[in-house]
Amino acid sequence: MEQQQIFIQMAINGWNMQVKRTEQLFNSCSEEQLLKEIAPGKNRSIYIIGHMIAYHDAMNEILGTGKRSYSQLDAAFMHNPDRTGFDMPSVAELKQYWNDVHEQLSNAFEAMHQDDWFKRHNNMTDEDFAKEPARNKLSVLLNRTNHVAYHLGQLRLLK
Amino acid sequence: MEQQQIFIQMAINGWNMQVKRTEQLFNSCSEEQLLKEIAPGKNRSIYIIGHMIAYHDAMNEILGTGKRSYSQLDAAFMHNPDRTGFDMPSVAELKQYWNDVHEQLSNAFEAMHQDDWFKRHNNMTDEDFAKEPARNKLSVLLNRTNHVAYHLGQLRLLK
Repeated sequence: MEQQQIFIQMAINGWNMQVKRTEQLFNSCSEEQLLKEIAPGKNRSIYIIGHMIAYHDAMNEILGTGKRSYSQLDAAFMHNPDRTGFDMPSVAELKQYWNDVHEQLSNAFEAMHQDDWFKRHNNMTDEDFAKEPARNKLSVLLNRTNHVAYHLGQLRLLK
Repeated sequence: MEQQQIFIQMAINGWNMQVKRTEQLFNSCSEEQLLKEIAPGKNRSIYIIGHMIAYHDAMNEILGTGKRSYSQLDAAFMHNPDRTGFDMPSVAELKQYWNDVHEQLSNAFEAMHQDDWFKRHNNMTDEDFAKEPARNKLSVLLNRTNHVAYHLGQLRLLK
């Protein structure tokens, strides 16, 4: 395996592992657990899950892998705190969205040309990228993987 | 910058970011906050911090960057749950250990030859590594970075 391919595989392996662990936890939670705060006065699990779906859906535009599918989730899960009165989908709908978003990303990652991972992502200017070539598309994947781990640590407190 | 160097830089950048965020949170917490559970019946912050110090100290042996310095922390922070009666250092001592472990790792990362990051780590056999070359030393750094993020998500609940 050549080195470039190994880098990409490492980053995708890390993403898959964190997403899978979170998905297993999500699937093992009752609706009652999902509607519970992870700690007194903190976000509910359903909010954290919805937040990840919206955040991952938005990766498509940053990576140039497609249009967003679920921007309607932004009001309830990205732009406003939990319990501020915005409509939320049902748990069954969120499970469907979770599966769709991650399957679509998984296909997009597989289809991406190796060299493209090392190109500028769409939240960077050409000028900034020339100064900081380590802030490429693959770095977006690494950062988002840390973001999943961060919230998985919180969700784990439910159990 | 050549691609191998870019990838190593990305992994080290991610590590530094998560460690720095955790350190800032640790430094901003009172001793009282550190002795509080992050959620009812869950680990105390001091346990999570001590656990990360012990875990990161142990990275030296996995990466081949040196001997461990703080294996005396394992009983209280790695091998047993929180509040099982094992001696814990003071918060001031833990701050010192935190700084020492991360400074030493930072120097070791800087001194590591680029090619060495893509070699087998000490918890893998040659046979397994031949099958899975993406499980190299750099993948240890990526995994440990996710582990920091996981616990940072929990510590953040204190605030």
